[in-house]
Amino acid sequence: MKSTWVTEITDQARKEGRLSLTEAESKSLLSLYGIPVVEEATAVSEDDAIAQSREIGLPVVLKGLGARLIHKTERGLVKVNLKSDDEVRQAYRHIKDAAGEDWEACLIQPFIEGNREFAAGLIRDPQFGPSVMFGLGGILTEALSDVTFRIAPLDEIQARSMLDEIRACKLLGAFRGEAEVDKKQLIQVLMSLSRLGMDHPEIREIDINPFIVMPDGSVRAVDALVVLANAEEIPVAIEVIDDRNMEREKEIRAALDVMMHARSIAVLGATVPRPNFPGIFECVRRFGFNGRLYPVNPRGQDYNGIKFYSSLSSLPEKVDLVIVSIPAPLVPEALRECVATGNRNVHIFTAGFKETGEEEGLRLQAEIEKIAREGGLHVVGPNCMGFYVPASRMLTWTDASKESGPVSFVSQSGGNAQDFTHYLSSIYNIHFSKCISFGNALTLDSCDFIDYLSHDEDTKIITMYLEGVKDGSRLLRQVREISRRKPVILYKSGLTESGARAVSSHTGSMAGGEKIWKAFFRQTGAIPVDSLEEMADVTLAVHHIRAAHGRKTTVLGIGGGNGVAVADSCARAGLELPAFSPDLVSKLRNSIGIDGSMIKNPIDSVIAFTSLPVMGETLELLAQSGEIDNFIISMSLDWLTLKKEESGTYAETVATYLVEEGQGHTHGKPLIAVLRQYQPDPTTQKSIPLVEKILLSGGIPVYKSLSQAVSALSKLVTYNASIVEESQARLIQR
Amino acid sequence: MKSTWVTEITDQARKEGRLSLTEAESKSLLSLYGIPVVEEATAVSEDDAIAQSREIGLPVVLKGLGARLIHKTERGLVKVNLKSDDEVRQAYRHIKDAAGEDWEACLIQPFIEGNREFAAGLIRDPQFGPSVMFGLGGILTEALSDVTFRIAPLDEIQARSMLDEIRACKLLGAFRGEAEVDKKQLIQVLMSLSRLGMDHPEIREIDINPFIVMPDGSVRAVDALVVLANAEEIPVAIEVIDDRNMEREKEIRAALDVMMHARSIAVLGATVPRPNFPGIFECVRRFGFNGRLYPVNPRGQDYNGIKFYSSLSSLPEKVDLVIVSIPAPLVPEALRECVATGNRNVHIFTAGFKETGEEEGLRLQAEIEKIAREGGLHVVGPNCMGFYVPASRMLTWTDASKESGPVSFVSQSGGNAQDFTHYLSSIYNIHFSKCISFGNALTLDSCDFIDYLSHDEDTKIITMYLEGVKDGSRLLRQVREISRRKPVILYKSGLTESGARAVSSHTGSMAGGEKIWKAFFRQTGAIPVDSLEEMADVTLAVHHIRAAHGRKTTVLGIGGGNGVAVADSCARAGLELPAFSPDLVSKLRNSIGIDGSMIKNPIDSVIAFTSLPVMGETLELLAQSGEIDNFIISMSLDWLTLKKEESGTYAETVATYLVEEGQGHTHGKPLIAVLRQYQPDPTTQKSIPLVEKILLSGGIPVYKSLSQAVSALSKLVTYNASIVEESQARLIQR
Repeated sequence: MKSTWVTEITDQARKEGRLSLTEAESKSLLSLYGIPVVEEATAVSEDDAIAQSREIGLPVVLKGLGARLIHKTERGLVKVNLKSDDEVRQAYRHIKDAAGEDWEACLIQPFIEGNREFAAGLIRDPQFGPSVMFGLGGILTEALSDVTFRIAPLDEIQARSMLDEIRACKLLGAFRGEAEVDKKQLIQVLMSLSRLGMDHPEIREIDINPFIVMPDGSVRAVDALVVLANAEEIPVAIEVIDDRNMEREKEIRAALDVMMHARSIAVLGATVPRPNFPGIFECVRRFGFNGRLYPVNPRGQDYNGIKFYSSLSSLPEKVDLVIVSIPAPLVPEALRECVATGNRNVHIFTAGFKETGEEEGLRLQAEIEKIAREGGLHVVGPNCMGFYVPASRMLTWTDASKESGPVSFVSQSGGNAQDFTHYLSSIYNIHFSKCISFGNALTLDSCDFIDYLSHDEDTKIITMYLEGVKDGSRLLRQVREISRRKPVILYKSGLTESGARAVSSHTGSMAGGEKIWKAFFRQTGAIPVDSLEEMADVTLAVHHIRAAHGRKTTVLGIGGGNGVAVADSCARAGLELPAFSPDLVSKLRNSIGIDGSMIKNPIDSVIAFTSLPVMGETLELLAQSGEIDNFIISMSLDWLTLKKEESGTYAETVATYLVEEGQGHTHGKPLIAVLRQYQPDPTTQKSIPLVEKILLSGGIPVYKSLSQAVSALSKLVTYNASIVEESQARLIQR
Repeated sequence: MKSTWVTEITDQARKEGRLSLTEAESKSLLSLYGIPVVEEATAVSEDDAIAQSREIGLPVVLKGLGARLIHKTERGLVKVNLKSDDEVRQAYRHIKDAAGEDWEACLIQPFIEGNREFAAGLIRDPQFGPSVMFGLGGILTEALSDVTFRIAPLDEIQARSMLDEIRACKLLGAFRGEAEVDKKQLIQVLMSLSRLGMDHPEIREIDINPFIVMPDGSVRAVDALVVLANAEEIPVAIEVIDDRNMEREKEIRAALDVMMHARSIAVLGATVPRPNFPGIFECVRRFGFNGRLYPVNPRGQDYNGIKFYSSLSSLPEKVDLVIVSIPAPLVPEALRECVATGNRNVHIFTAGFKETGEEEGLRLQAEIEKIAREGGLHVVGPNCMGFYVPASRMLTWTDASKESGPVSFVSQSGGNAQDFTHYLSSIYNIHFSKCISFGNALTLDSCDFIDYLSHDEDTKIITMYLEGVKDGSRLLRQVREISRRKPVILYKSGLTESGARAVSSHTGSMAGGEKIWKAFFRQTGAIPVDSLEEMADVTLAVHHIRAAHGRKTTVLGIGGGNGVAVADSCARAGLELPAFSPDLVSKLRNSIGIDGSMIKNPIDSVIAFTSLPVMGETLELLAQSGEIDNFIISMSLDWLTLKKEESGTYAETVATYLVEEGQGHTHGKPLIAVLRQYQPDPTTQKSIPLVEKILLSGGIPVYKSLSQAVSALSKLVTYNASIVEESQARLIQR
C-alpha cells in the first residue's frame, strides 16, 4: 500500500534538489511503517534545546540537522550522554559552529544506553530489485561486513532466518546481563523495510544504523538515512502478474513446445559436410532427426540425394523451427524473411553480436532485436548451440546420448551445454529430457525456458548454468515455486565479480553480487553449485536418493584413508560424524569381532569387507540404532581389486552385495559409495567402470572422492529442509 | 629474561590460593614488560576516591577491585564517564554494594574515549606452548572471534603480519576522523606478550581487552587479566637447544641413515607367502632388496631355498634393521631380545597398541616404550608400514615405483604412505627418495624424521601427513628453518576437531586447533594442503616451476569453459586475472585476428590453437607486456583430440609445441596446462596419458581442472613470498 505522505515528502525533497531525506524526515517515514525510532525534538535556539532536553529527560543526545548534513559522526556533529543544561548548551554551540552553513537545527534525542548495535537497510539490486539487509551495526558495519540480504518481498520465516545468519548472531541472545533481543520486533522491522521497498520505487536506499538494543531487549532506530532515486531511475510501474503476462507466457510455452518437438526444420546456411567440420545441418541429420529437414543455401550443392533450397519462401511448408547459421551481417535479412514467410520460431546459431563487446556487434544485435520484436519472432540465441531433445531426435551439435532421461538443462553457454550433457550421461549414466543453450537471449531468456520446463512432465530435475539474468524478480518467483515440485540445481558463474556501482548508503556498499545471490538461493531453495562437475555430483544424489533428511553420517571403510581426515571432510561439508553410543559400540563389537577393527565413527574394519554378512549386520545395527541418517561405504579399490573372483574382481562382488543386500539394511536411509584409488593398476582401471555400473544401475550413487560425496549429500539435505520450511511458510500465510 | 618481581607476585597469589592476579597486579605486570596501560589509583573510601579522581582528572572510570572479582562488566562493577564529584561518589557506593564481600577497593582510571577497541592475549597451546593472540576487542571479541594467533617467540615481521590478518583490519587505518593506529606500539605489545610467555611458564593465560585506540592513534590497555598455571602444569624447564640435544639428534640421524641404507634386515614373524597375502618378508624380498635378508620365525618353513632362523641370537650378524611383525602380546619379549643382542634399530609393523584406545593396547604400548627407552632402541612404529627407499631397494609393503626422485614423505598413516607414493609416481611421474610411515611414534617422532630429511641431500621436497605432534615447538623451529632451503608440504588432518579444553580466559576460549595450525603455517612457510590429491598437485607445481613470484594470471583457452567461470576460480584461489591494457589488446588483436576470438582475460581463441605460431606470438606479447606473471593453457581435449595427425591426435601436437616452443615464449614465467574433458570418447581417453606424458617430461605441470591448477600455483606463490619475508626478518635481526 503506497503511502501518500511518503510520496509527498519525497516529491518535496526532489523539488528542493535533494536526493536524500533529513534524519528527522527519514525517521518519520520509518515510523509510519511501524519501525521503532527514538523519540526526538528539534531546536533552533539554545534555550529551546535546553527546554526540549528537560522534556525528553536527561541524559540526551544532540545532533546537527540539515538537508546537506550526512556523515555526521565523522564531522563531529553528534554529542552523546549530555547530563546537564550546561552540557546541552555547550554541545548546541559546538554543533552549530562545526556545521557552519549546512546547519538548520539541532535534533534532540534521549541518550539510549545499550551495548548491542545492529543495522538494517534497503537497496535496489540491479537484477533483483528491492532487497533488505540485516547485520552488525555501529562503527563496525563496514569494517566487518557481517551482513545478510533477502530479496523483497519477504515473509516472516525468511526474515527470521536472516537473524541466524550473521556471524555476530550470539549478540541476539541474552548477553552480559542484558535480555535477549526482541526478535519479533526485529522481524517486523525487516518486513517493514521490504514493504517500503515494494511500495515506493522512488526510494533507492535506506540505512538504519545503529539499531540499539536496550537492556530489556527492545530495539530502537537511533539514526536513519533515506536515499531517493534519480527521476530517470524510478521504474514506471512495478511489474504485476496480470492476464496479459499469463497470455504471453502461455504463448511462449506453446512455441517452445513446437520447437522441442519439431516435425520440420529448415537450416539457413546449410553446407556440405567436410571432415571434422560436419556443419549444423549434418549434425541434425546424423543424430537421426526423423521429421522433414530442409537445407537452405542459395549456393548449396545437393549431396547424398539431399536437395538444397534457395530461400525460406521456396520451402513447401512453414516449418516448426528455423536454424540460422549464416554470417552475422546477413542475419537481419534472414530474420526479415522469417517474418515475411510466417516462420516465427528461430534459433540463431551465429555469433558476433553483443557478446563481442564491440561496436558493430552491439549495433547488429540491436537491429535484429528490433526485427524480431516487431515481427513477433520467438528467438533462441544468437550465439548459442540451441537444442538437444533426444526424444525428438533433435541435436544441433556433434554428439550426445540418444537415451532420454529425467534431467533438463538450461545453459547460457553453448560449451557448457555440450560438456554437461556429455559428462552426466557418460560418467553417471543419467540422461536428458531437454537441453537448451540460449546465448545472448534476444527475445527468449532463461525465465521463459524455466517456465516451459516447470510445465514439462518429462522434466523431473532442472539444471541451469547462468551468467546473468534479465528479470531477477521473475526468476526468483519462478524458481521458488518450481523448487517445491522439482529440484533446481543452479551453477551461477561470475559470483566473485567485483560489482562496482555508485551507491550512496552504507547498505549499498555492502551489497555485492555474491551476497544477493546467496539470498536468491536461500529464498528459492535452488541448490547452488560451483562447477559442471559439482552440478553432476549433486544431480546424481538428487536423482538416486532424494529422501535425505538428516546430517548424522557414518563412513565404513578400511585403513588409513578412513581416519581423522574423514571427520575433516564431513565437517567442511556441514555433515556430522557423531560418536556412537556405548550401547551401539558394544553391539557392533559383538558383530564385527575384536581383531583389527576400529569401532568408532568412521568405522575402519577389514572384516566388514571380507565377510559381507558382517557388513550387512553392521548396516542393520547402525540403522536400527537411530543414531545415523546416512551411510557411506568407502571402497579401497587398490585393495579390493587385488582379490579375484570367478565373475571379476572382489570389488565387483562388494558392489553387487551393496545393491542386492546392503541397501536393504539401511531402512530406507541414503546409502552412498565412494571409490578410493591411488594406483593406476590395469586390473583396477578395468574394474572401476564395472563397479560404477553395478552401483549406478542399482540406484546407489558412487563418487570418486569422499569430499564430493559428502558435499553433494549435504546440499541435498539442505534442499529438502528448504522445502519443509517453504511449506511451513505457506501454512502460516493461510 | 625472567623478572623476579613477576615470580614474587605470582608466588604470592598462589600462596593466597588464587589462580589469577587482580586487575591492578595484572596491569603492573604488563607495564613492567612495556605494555602501555591506563594510569590508575585505588581508593578505599569515598573521599579518597574523589580526591584521586581529581588528581587523575575528570571524567574517570571506577571499577571494583578484589582478588575474587572477575567478569566485572557482567556484575555491574564498572562505571564509566564520571564527570563530577557527585557521580564519582554515587559510583563508588554502587560498586561497593554490588560487589558485596568480594570488594576490596575501587580502581580509578581516566575515562579514555576512543571508538576502536582491540584485544590481545597469551595462551599456552598444548602442542605449541605460549601463543600470542590479537584481534577485535570489546564486547564483540567472542561473538565474532575475529582473532589471529602466532606461536611464541615472535619477531617484528610476524607480529606485524598479525595486524593485517583480522577481518576488522580496516579499523587500524585512519577511521572516522581518528588517526591511524600506532602500529609500532601494537607490534611492541605483541612481542612483549611473546616474551612474557617465554620468560614465565607460571603464567598460563593473559587477556588484555579492551585495548582502546585513542583519537591520536596510540593504544592503552584498559582492562587486563593474568591467569596462573596450577603448580603441576608448570613445565620444569623450558627446553633449550643445548649440546646434549644436539648429540641426541646426531645419534638419531646416524641411526636413521643406517636403517634407510640397510645392508642387512631381519624380519621377526616372517612367513611363507600365500596368494594375495605375501607378508612383509616377501614384500621386501620381491622389491629386490640386495642386502642380507633374514627371516626369523621359530615355526618358519624354508621355501625357495630361503633358510629361516629361530631367533635374533641365531643370526650370523647384528643387523642394520629389525622388522617386527608378530602378534602384539609377543612384542615386548621381542624388544627385550633386540636389546640383548644389540640390535638397536627396529621397525614395529604390528598394530594393537595405543591406537586402539583400549586398555590392553595402552598397557602394552607403555610396556614396550619402557623397554625401548631403557634399552636405547631406535623404534619406528608400532602400527606403521615402515620404509620405502627405492635407492636401497627397500620397501615394506606390496608395491611401489623402483625409480628414485627428489621427494620424501613422512606419514603418520600407513595407508596414506602407500596411497601417496603410488599416486605421485604413477599420476605425475614424480618419484621418491625416502618415505617413512611411523604410526604411534614410540621413540622416534615426526621431528626426528624431518631432521634427518633436512640433512639428506637427495631430498629436495619434503611432504608430510600428520595427525598430531608430540613436540610442537621443535617442529615449528625445524620446519621454519628447513622451509628456507626445501619446500615442506604438510597435510595436517584433524583441523576441524572441536578442541574442547578447560580455559579461564577469553583468549583461551578462541584458540582452537585450526587457528593455531594456521599460525604454524604462517610462521614456518610450510605449504598447507587438505588431501593427498592436493599434496600431489602442489608437489607437481613445486617440482616443475618453483620460481613463481606473482599473482597476475592469464588463461588461454577455447569456448564456453573459458569464460566467466575462470575468473571465479582464480578469485577463489587468490590469483588475479587482470584486464589487459588497451595497448596490449590491440597488439593481441593484430596477432590473433578479428574472427571469433575474445581478446580479454581469459582469452578465448580458436586460432591460437589451430595455428600454433599464433599461440607462440600471443604468449610472447603477453610476456613482453609485463602485465602477466603466470600462463595457463586450457586444452579442450574433447575438441583437440577430434583432429588426427600422423603422430597421434592434435592434442599431442599442441602439447609438443608447448614443450618445444611455447615455454620459450614466457620469459621464464610459469606455464601450466589444464586439460578440459567431459566426454569419455575412446580416442580422447587414449590420448590423455600421452598428452600428460609429453607435458610432464617437458617440465610443464598439467592438471585435470583449472581449480586444481590455480590453487597449487597460488600456494607456490605464497610459499615463495614467505621465503622472502623470512630472509627480511633475518636481515633485521642482525
